[in-house]
Amino acid sequence: MERKINEECGIFGIFGEAKHSHQTARTVYYALYALQHRGQQSCGISIGNREKKVVVCHKDLGLVSEVFDGSILDTLDGDMAVGHTRYASADKNTRDNAQPLSINYNKGTLSIVLNGAIANAPELRRILEKQGAIFQSTGDTEVIACLISRERLVSKSIEEAVSRVVPLLKGAFSMLVMSPQKLIAVRDPYGIRPLCIGRVGSATVFASESCAISAVGGKFLRDLDPGEIVLVTDDGIESIRDHCGGNQAMCIFEHIYFARPDSIIDGQSVYESRLEAGRILAEASPVDADIVIGVPDSGLIAAMGYAEKSGIPYREGLIRNRYIGRTFIQPRQGERAQSVMIKLGPIEANVKGKRVVMVDDSIVRGTTINQLVELLRYAGAAEVHIRISSPEFLWPCYFGTDIPSRDRLALVKYTKDEFCKKIGADSLEFLPLDRVTDVAKNSKVKFCDACFSGKYPFDVTEDLAQKDFEYNIEKR
Amino acid sequence: MERKINEECGIFGIFGEAKHSHQTARTVYYALYALQHRGQQSCGISIGNREKKVVVCHKDLGLVSEVFDGSILDTLDGDMAVGHTRYASADKNTRDNAQPLSINYNKGTLSIVLNGAIANAPELRRILEKQGAIFQSTGDTEVIACLISRERLVSKSIEEAVSRVVPLLKGAFSMLVMSPQKLIAVRDPYGIRPLCIGRVGSATVFASESCAISAVGGKFLRDLDPGEIVLVTDDGIESIRDHCGGNQAMCIFEHIYFARPDSIIDGQSVYESRLEAGRILAEASPVDADIVIGVPDSGLIAAMGYAEKSGIPYREGLIRNRYIGRTFIQPRQGERAQSVMIKLGPIEANVKGKRVVMVDDSIVRGTTINQLVELLRYAGAAEVHIRISSPEFLWPCYFGTDIPSRDRLALVKYTKDEFCKKIGADSLEFLPLDRVTDVAKNSKVKFCDACFSGKYPFDVTEDLAQKDFEYNIEKR
Amino acid sequence: MERKINEECGIFGIFGEAKHSHQTARTVYYALYALQHRGQQSCGISIGNREKKVVVCHKDLGLVSEVFDGSILDTLDGDMAVGHTRYASADKNTRDNAQPLSINYNKGTLSIVLNGAIANAPELRRILEKQGAIFQSTGDTEVIACLISRERLVSKSIEEAVSRVVPLLKGAFSMLVMSPQKLIAVRDPYGIRPLCIGRVGSATVFASESCAISAVGGKFLRDLDPGEIVLVTDDGIESIRDHCGGNQAMCIFEHIYFARPDSIIDGQSVYESRLEAGRILAEASPVDADIVIGVPDSGLIAAMGYAEKSGIPYREGLIRNRYIGRTFIQPRQGERAQSVMIKLGPIEANVKGKRVVMVDDSIVRGTTINQLVELLRYAGAAEVHIRISSPEFLWPCYFGTDIPSRDRLALVKYTKDEFCKKIGADSLEFLPLDRVTDVAKNSKVKFCDACFSGKYPFDVTEDLAQKDFEYNIEKR
Amino acid sequence: MERKINEECGIFGIFGEAKHSHQTARTVYYALYALQHRGQQSCGISIGNREKKVVVCHKDLGLVSEVFDGSILDTLDGDMAVGHTRYASADKNTRDNAQPLSINYNKGTLSIVLNGAIANAPELRRILEKQGAIFQSTGDTEVIACLISRERLVSKSIEEAVSRVVPLLKGAFSMLVMSPQKLIAVRDPYGIRPLCIGRVGSATVFASESCAISAVGGKFLRDLDPGEIVLVTDDGIESIRDHCGGNQAMCIFEHIYFARPDSIIDGQSVYESRLEAGRILAEASPVDADIVIGVPDSGLIAAMGYAEKSGIPYREGLIRNRYIGRTFIQPRQGERAQSVMIKLGPIEANVKGKRVVMVDDSIVRGTTINQLVELLRYAGAAEVHIRISSPEFLWPCYFGTDIPSRDRLALVKYTKDEFCKKIGADSLEFLPLDRVTDVAKNSKVKFCDACFSGKYPFDVTEDLAQKDFEYNIEKR
Repeated sequence: MERKINEECGIFGIFGEAKHSHQTARTVYYALYALQHRGQQSCGISIGNREKKVVVCHKDLGLVSEVFDGSILDTLDGDMAVGHTRYASADKNTRDNAQPLSINYNKGTLSIVLNGAIANAPELRRILEKQGAIFQSTGDTEVIACLISRERLVSKSIEEAVSRVVPLLKGAFSMLVMSPQKLIAVRDPYGIRPLCIGRVGSATVFASESCAISAVGGKFLRDLDPGEIVLVTDDGIESIRDHCGGNQAMCIFEHIYFARPDSIIDGQSVYESRLEAGRILAEASPVDADIVIGVPDSGLIAAMGYAEKSGIPYREGLIRNRYIGRTFIQPRQGERAQSVMIKLGPIEANVKGKRVVMVDDSIVRGTTINQLVELLRYAGAAEVHIRISSPEFLWPCYFGTDIPSRDRLALVKYTKDEFCKKIGADSLEFLPLDRVTDVAKNSKVKFCDACFSGKYPFDVTEDLAQKDFEYNIEKR
Repeated sequence: MERKINEECGIFGIFGEAKHSHQTARTVYYALYALQHRGQQSCGISIGNREKKVVVCHKDLGLVSEVFDGSILDTLDGDMAVGHTRYASADKNTRDNAQPLSINYNKGTLSIVLNGAIANAPELRRILEKQGAIFQSTGDTEVIACLISRERLVSKSIEEAVSRVVPLLKGAFSMLVMSPQKLIAVRDPYGIRPLCIGRVGSATVFASESCAISAVGGKFLRDLDPGEIVLVTDDGIESIRDHCGGNQAMCIFEHIYFARPDSIIDGQSVYESRLEAGRILAEASPVDADIVIGVPDSGLIAAMGYAEKSGIPYREGLIRNRYIGRTFIQPRQGERAQSVMIKLGPIEANVKGKRVVMVDDSIVRGTTINQLVELLRYAGAAEVHIRISSPEFLWPCYFGTDIPSRDRLALVKYTKDEFCKKIGADSLEFLPLDRVTDVAKNSKVKFCDACFSGKYPFDVTEDLAQKDFEYNIEKR
Repeated sequence: MERKINEECGIFGIFGEAKHSHQTARTVYYALYALQHRGQQSCGISIGNREKKVVVCHKDLGLVSEVFDGSILDTLDGDMAVGHTRYASADKNTRDNAQPLSINYNKGTLSIVLNGAIANAPELRRILEKQGAIFQSTGDTEVIACLISRERLVSKSIEEAVSRVVPLLKGAFSMLVMSPQKLIAVRDPYGIRPLCIGRVGSATVFASESCAISAVGGKFLRDLDPGEIVLVTDDGIESIRDHCGGNQAMCIFEHIYFARPDSIIDGQSVYESRLEAGRILAEASPVDADIVIGVPDSGLIAAMGYAEKSGIPYREGLIRNRYIGRTFIQPRQGERAQSVMIKLGPIEANVKGKRVVMVDDSIVRGTTINQLVELLRYAGAAEVHIRISSPEFLWPCYFGTDIPSRDRLALVKYTKDEFCKKIGADSLEFLPLDRVTDVAKNSKVKFCDACFSGKYPFDVTEDLAQKDFEYNIEKR
Repeated sequence: MERKINEECGIFGIFGEAKHSHQTARTVYYALYALQHRGQQSCGISIGNREKKVVVCHKDLGLVSEVFDGSILDTLDGDMAVGHTRYASADKNTRDNAQPLSINYNKGTLSIVLNGAIANAPELRRILEKQGAIFQSTGDTEVIACLISRERLVSKSIEEAVSRVVPLLKGAFSMLVMSPQKLIAVRDPYGIRPLCIGRVGSATVFASESCAISAVGGKFLRDLDPGEIVLVTDDGIESIRDHCGGNQAMCIFEHIYFARPDSIIDGQSVYESRLEAGRILAEASPVDADIVIGVPDSGLIAAMGYAEKSGIPYREGLIRNRYIGRTFIQPRQGERAQSVMIKLGPIEANVKGKRVVMVDDSIVRGTTINQLVELLRYAGAAEVHIRISSPEFLWPCYFGTDIPSRDRLALVKYTKDEFCKKIGADSLEFLPLDRVTDVAKNSKVKFCDACFSGKYPFDVTEDLAQKDFEYNIEKR
């Protein structure tokens, strides 16, 4: 199962070394590994040594375990760092877009990592270019770096420069900025992507998700508020709240699919959100059946919630092959060994002769769900009822995920009933749209559900999907 | 979680092409991928083209997805093949021991794949060497090849030669032998390792586990009987049963741990075996607790069985990081980020303040279980009760797994109570030894439980663990 | 023999495709391969497709044959291109500094390749940073790109912008600039590095050396004049000579060592220059000897010249091992197999009992010459007289070679006689300083011999060797 | 220029460590590197530690510098070793055929390296197979190992077993055999391939060519006599001469092309042989011309000999590009950049308007010589006269080179005059057949010139070129 929608990034930062300086890099390494689900195309670490006044940045295409090895980590010696793990759609998967972005500017060095996407980046680029700026990548991070550099000329500090840049940016931007002596964390005013702060030993850390802090044996402190800027220096931690207090629009899909179930975001357990989604789904769309199964791995928790609420027993119906690799050869059209059978094995003992409820988290392009139905029939299922733990996916996202245009969305092309018939299921139901944000009722922030409702937190009338077409350098 | 005990091999064979000849290699590729859990160190395919009278063998160290790519598969053109995926202890992980073993001998070519281990191989080597034989590997397969070649000189057919070799071998040997025009499958008289037969299109296939047949869209026919030899030629399938009918000693650990849960072995669903092990454990060792969790992935099914029988709710307590790679850098002793925390994230929402029953499949060296207890305490568990879905592991295995000597087994070094205290658990219980084979009550064959009981199916008085010491060539 | 001094770059550009568009990339590939002696650390090609309005840039660390393969070349589809091959001292050998530099700016795209070094780059960086510019590399090319982008804002055309930038730069800069519809070649006003123009089919090409034009079957037209800017568009070729006519200072070391002997630079055959250097040396420093040998490969031609003029027979005394690879393991100090013996084999039949004149091109650090003397003695040479076909190397170069500081130069640390004694030679003589430019008497331009004479073409009083120390980001 | 004919192997052995045990492996490494011209497809080292009684063998496809790195060499710890570097025709370039061959047999271990080819190997295989032997490669070395193992059963020592095997083998076999405590060197009774003995520190070494002994700072002692077996043990060196004294048939092509010019073989300097070939050629085929040039690198020395004898000045006419790599992309048919122009650059200054004599060592397939003529015409040569420093190549070789069949030999397909016309040369002459062995007049042994004369040293009436067709396993 390839991920259906891809989050664009995971970020992590650390200020102050835990024990000795080489642990700084290793801590980031393990934290990025814990955030690997947020991006598998490229990754990198930029590490600063405040005493030696040196910044070293290592990044490349590949997984964390591929880009770094022991000898590389041993050369990354410092007492503060930022790290990044990145998803990118195929045509943008270039080294130039890999992060961190490390630059020299009028006050020395800056290393920046970004989780998100800036909707007005094309406009900002044009303005900067008209002042003579050059761009070496197609990424939004370079635009932000350029803006910070310019605002720094009229600011008393790097944090002031960063704060001046925030109102210029329209979009999602959980971001870390490392200057020669400071680490700055920013969560955009809508709080679209998560960002939290914690401690590891005596060091302060920032992470996209709390699971990364746990993975390195640290202590989660709190989430950043939407619009909050946190500054860490040798003098301590300072919060700048000039941009707080506006509308909130945290991405609900983080709870449904993106985030790891062992993370807690804005006070809400992701595991609990998925269980609750299953429960709500059982309430809203019950069915007379013998067992409930989930589609591994992302549908399993909601399936347990459905089973719990409906009283129908939970069973595993599909076993996922754990060894799929980057270089695995996909079966060709018409080969007996179909893609989905290679990756998932049906447990005949559980499904044979049974009426099965199969729970999955979402239908985006809808390309494999019919194979799943077929697989269950092959294993002898008497009926196959599909329950989806999110509403119908109908609108594109401009905030750092890869859903570019409506015409590829299954539920735009077909009505629910047409699609149910097309995939050969006995029934198909979705989480009701008006209940989607109920799944995370403990969250301290409000949500963006634009991909289901079409209601974006701000105006996105430009054809943003086309935004990069004019930047036509392809680098490798 | 590294696998605690390693099975040595998965094998697959095909005779007769499904549609066109290039599909033969691809079918083996996908089948080996489905058997990847039985060996990740090396793999290979030997493919025969009966018309062109050519055998091509490609093998190397690495996963199936690493050793083969599309361009290699496209050059593997034939209408019969054998494939192998192999585990090997570190010091034997050489290319020379990779399989299939392809040789020239007095009747042309032979390609052999073996799942198992021959206990009297050192003795057989010495006998053969005294007749002038030379050996290029330390593997048992080369000994078998040499014996077949010699017996072929006095046999009317390759199947007669193979049948003559069977009584000479003492040990586990599910094996496939491909000659220029025939494919022969052998399961040793004790039936220690599984081997089954099926059909894919018009081709006959053999596989270590039925999941590999399902993965390529095939139809499972039946398991080979212990001692059965099956011969496939253009004239059809023939069964040679001269060695059938003796004592049976199928490895019970295949059901507890080695095999994939979606396989059915000798009539028994592996998933059902694990669920039943959990149920028996709940009966035998109940405990007053709030939730049952399993150690991913191998303890999850038994945990569900325990929950079902005990009535205590099943929850996920630990989330496994799916991105662990071959080149991942393990944390060093004393680093905050401990090995187990990198790989497993505790779900605080589920375990905080709860009395937890944690089910795992076995304790062999016992090196990580204390970290698991610590991890649950870190996440706030009030009590941690460990339940193991197999008996205490006390004796070495000589039949193709990698448990070399007793002194490394946790439950040999410590009593159960000592070990429970050492790992800091509130209680620790194992599946009762007298009920271990009850887990697979539908199996058509009897079992070997020597690793728990010390009762081996035949005399293993020689110091077999030392057997390879005299072969001192190390090749790379 | 590692190269003693390293030239920093070779450049090549093409405008207008020869036959079909994929040949554009292949033509650059073969041309860069012919310029590989000018840089082996990284290389790249930026190709423009004027119809599709797309620029694709592929570059990486490694040799031309390593960075590009057939499938990559096949994706480089266009009708104009610039290519680069680069030497870089170890600490700067990063991907970020690899060229071409491809950018987006206010008028679309630019791809720039540079052979040379800008002495006042640090000062220019500071000025640009004070206007808000950010820098992602430590290379001079990025500074130039930034200047061109700014000047373009006040220019009517890209060629006007380039022409405005020329007077701002102090140093060596043979350079190619590719805009969406134009290719511009620039040779700095001193003409320090070579740059020539030719035709391949109907396409116009530029190359650092004429050998690259020959290698792709093209026709050499002429060298650019110092200060000349050549503009190529669909309308033809135009020469801008606003910066011509000043002092000339072509690097004489191009003739002595850097350039390929089959190149002709500014009207002078490099082969002939080296032969002439040998002849002048024989005149100036005769010796009574039996044979003349050269140090492979760079000393062979001068040795022939010495033999010709002196009448002493030329023989090969040392055979170079052709298989040295990038990953070859150097012998450790004190091992019998000394570095030089691994690379050069003495021909005993030629040198045994003979009085030998050994000609080499230069002595820079002087680290291996004593091993060469030892090697000849080991092979039985009666006497070893060393003749160097350039004057004593005494001053650093700031124009794109890697001689950073005087204290590593052998002839600064020792007098000629001390050094002769130290290396155990019977005599040691150099080309007279006042005759060094006589070696290239047909050249149409005058020369810089600052590395021998200390007379730089312009003031280099700043401590230029330290110039990069303030830029402390290390990227990989 | 790819090598026209490929020698199959270089071998090296050492007994007794120089200083400390890790130097043993490094000494072999450097020696194999010096023998790299004798084979570039695969290489390996088998090292024995007599104290620990362990043999470690590392081998793979690739150059010496690719197969070994520092960390591998550091693990190769021992006090005796054999090494091999191998050429193989494309279809046999498999890991299974890489050497050394390391085996276990009735007396422990054997490691064997072979330079040569056994003409009656197919017959020997059949005999061995009829006794039950199995073969895992298509190489002759495995046949020899099998014979030694059997003869060892009836011999008192390994050296007796080796001596018993010698009369069974028909062909070329310079060979080293390392047993647990002994190193044995064998040169076949005809002495077809070279093999010499030397000392490095206190260790005894064997090498295919003396250049390898020089490269590791050792002292050449003498060549083995044809048929001689040399045994090295802790008790010293012993010579077994039972098979000496027959006809001699050293390969004359070793002097003309295969060997390195700084080697001395059987008392004759290879450099001197090539110079003499040029001199004889000048005598036999004079021509009125302005300059003599050689085809780099193998034609250069003969060109100097031609120049010396004829009095016509020697010049370099073609410069070879040194950076050609294994992965270099060859130009396609019809591309302007022709293969030969990429590799060789003509020096116009030398050839323009001149009548040129171009000397090369041999014409085998004759595929590139016409491009060389064209290249010289392109550079302005007035006349091109080709002189070849060997006779016409008319017959295949069965002794370890890769000339498989007559129908690919240029001078079999065409008469000399036809071929001269076809390639567009002004004249074409070869070394007279009756003078070919005069080139090495100081050699202590007689020669085989069968490739020119068709007179083989023994009967080769079987269709030996077909010999491997029945062995149809292809391994990778």
